[in-house]
Amino acid sequence: MSVTAARGFEAAGVAVGLKSTGKKDVAVVVNRGPRKAAAAVFTSNRAQANPIIWSRQAIADGVAEAVVLNSGGANCFTGSFGFQTTHQTAERAASLLAVSSGDILVCSTGLIGTGDELFRAKVLDGVEQAIAALSPSGGDAASEAIMTTDSRPKRAVRAQDGWTVGGMAKGAGMLAPGLATMLVVITTDADLTSLELDSALRRATRVSFDRLDSDGCMSTNDQVTLLASGASGIRPEPFSFTSALTEVCRDLAEQLQSDAEGASHDIAIEVVGAASETDAVEVGRSVARNNLFKAAIFGNDPNWGRVLAAIGTTTAAFDPYDVDVSFNGVRVCTAGGPDRPREDVDLTARATRILIDLKSGADAATILTNDLTHEYVHENSAYSS
Amino acid sequence: MSVTAARGFEAAGVAVGLKSTGKKDVAVVVNRGPRKAAAAVFTSNRAQANPIIWSRQAIADGVAEAVVLNSGGANCFTGSFGFQTTHQTAERAASLLAVSSGDILVCSTGLIGTGDELFRAKVLDGVEQAIAALSPSGGDAASEAIMTTDSRPKRAVRAQDGWTVGGMAKGAGMLAPGLATMLVVITTDADLTSLELDSALRRATRVSFDRLDSDGCMSTNDQVTLLASGASGIRPEPFSFTSALTEVCRDLAEQLQSDAEGASHDIAIEVVGAASETDAVEVGRSVARNNLFKAAIFGNDPNWGRVLAAIGTTTAAFDPYDVDVSFNGVRVCTAGGPDRPREDVDLTARATRILIDLKSGADAATILTNDLTHEYVHENSAYSS
Repeated sequence: MSVTAARGFEAAGVAVGLKSTGKKDVAVVVNRGPRKAAAAVFTSNRAQANPIIWSRQAIADGVAEAVVLNSGGANCFTGSFGFQTTHQTAERAASLLAVSSGDILVCSTGLIGTGDELFRAKVLDGVEQAIAALSPSGGDAASEAIMTTDSRPKRAVRAQDGWTVGGMAKGAGMLAPGLATMLVVITTDADLTSLELDSALRRATRVSFDRLDSDGCMSTNDQVTLLASGASGIRPEPFSFTSALTEVCRDLAEQLQSDAEGASHDIAIEVVGAASETDAVEVGRSVARNNLFKAAIFGNDPNWGRVLAAIGTTTAAFDPYDVDVSFNGVRVCTAGGPDRPREDVDLTARATRILIDLKSGADAATILTNDLTHEYVHENSAYSS
Repeated sequence: MSVTAARGFEAAGVAVGLKSTGKKDVAVVVNRGPRKAAAAVFTSNRAQANPIIWSRQAIADGVAEAVVLNSGGANCFTGSFGFQTTHQTAERAASLLAVSSGDILVCSTGLIGTGDELFRAKVLDGVEQAIAALSPSGGDAASEAIMTTDSRPKRAVRAQDGWTVGGMAKGAGMLAPGLATMLVVITTDADLTSLELDSALRRATRVSFDRLDSDGCMSTNDQVTLLASGASGIRPEPFSFTSALTEVCRDLAEQLQSDAEGASHDIAIEVVGAASETDAVEVGRSVARNNLFKAAIFGNDPNWGRVLAAIGTTTAAFDPYDVDVSFNGVRVCTAGGPDRPREDVDLTARATRILIDLKSGADAATILTNDLTHEYVHENSAYSS
């Protein structure tokens, strides 16, 4: 049910030919209220797609009536024509829903540079068809319409104490922080203000999507949107809501990781004993982005030397000769020297856990990444995206 | 001739079984004077191998009698036993050459964590054999003994006005800046002080090895050493010497690039119109490290969207909607929008040139990198290094 699990929402996903496969490619999610509160976080890439430029402005007042999303074209680096396409998309949806275009968010995903007249015509057609098809059970169709190289839709729901949080995500490549490349829409029927939503969303994404770093490549189109209808009539405690929202975000982030293009291992890099959380994140990310480490995991090689070499490029507090490293529970490096033999480590399972103890403090963080495989190279060299 | 092209130097390369293939694995380069001036630059990785820790101290007074180098083991993260191995290596060479051990530099390359008693015995044996085999024509043998996954030795020589600069290099993977992973020894018979050598070496490496970023992975063992014998009796102008040294460094850096593990393209990323040289380097490096860009080049795809997405992650001065990008002379992106069709670009040749005009100033820099290929994944997943 994803975005229509919570009360007060309708959604739809339709096919208008943006995808050459004929699969669904335009989704609309509408908030029927009574409250229309919203918050969103965006890619920190300075190169931003037209929908990002638009949505940043539209969300500024904390109100959103609906989100229009398309796959099959990123509408990024498509000039002023591309921006007008985004504007017209919002205008068309606003007109059909009888609301202000300034309360319509737009998201696009696909090949950068795609956004010609044919693209515009199909997107506008998709807006009309999707709004005509809106339904309180349309969440699944919407989650299919935002897929690109995803092999399956991503959905997550948490319900408690009379209120619900549910969401959908897409993303399989160009997954890197601030945010992992993705489009995400999460809805809730909890009765919260946009400021409360904004605070909860930033806390939740910081420890979920921002800690997913599949291939170190940051997208131009990332957007995570949170809409609240208030339809449950319940005002949860901020802590309870943030916890549930974080669970939904983590669930979706793990689904993104496990569907990453061409990956054969889902790697959790757990950094403990850090002097600060920032240090732990920097160390985890540096290891996650090291191609030699990533290729070694693909080859089932617990190459701790590559882990230490990656840590050495960071500014984190640590002593290279007092670091422990374990692969799947087997400590192969103690105090910066060899410990148990690499033969003791079994890396054949998809789930892989690297534990790094910096012995410099009490903070910790876990970064999720994937290995570097032949399939990754194949998918990203044989096809434009 | 490499390190024995300049007068006043002897070298040798011998095989002592550090490599399972039985190929040469220990090299010695000796400065016979009359001057014994030296300078060196080291990896900026905070995780540093024992030979780096030793050589940093040994070079501090600007004097070096000889350099001992081994392949077949990095002697990194091998604890105090490993440091004693490096110390004993210097002691043994010093004793045989009748000089101070504090004037012996040591370099090692190979698998991190390798440095047991057998390793030590073989290295010390290699020192004896190599010093017994020293010859004014030993440069070629020395350049073979430092090879690891290199498919060929790297040598370069420049001679002018009665003095000569010549060098050897090894490196094929873990090639990243500050420095590209490598061992390099360069010799000259010019009559220069260690301070003059240091200044020239830093200028030369800054625009050569430091701009080679094959796979973004920084090594623990990088060292570039410059030795001057003064045997020509000629004191060149600093500018002339730096120019010749820079040419030798660039020549060796390009040889490293063209022998990078598994690469099918040698990519020069030329960034122009930058507000500063730092900006140009940051932008070039960000593109060079983007796996999606690298995979696209492997697939002969001029994917300028991935170039702009990589530029967007930098702090450089630029306007995303006023950037031009050309692939092999064909401008596919003008002012942040599509220009000539991708079909016009031919990327089948190994040599690949990306031109990025940031239109924000007059500074420029070129970063050398390689594509991301199946062979890279294979070599770095199937074998430990």
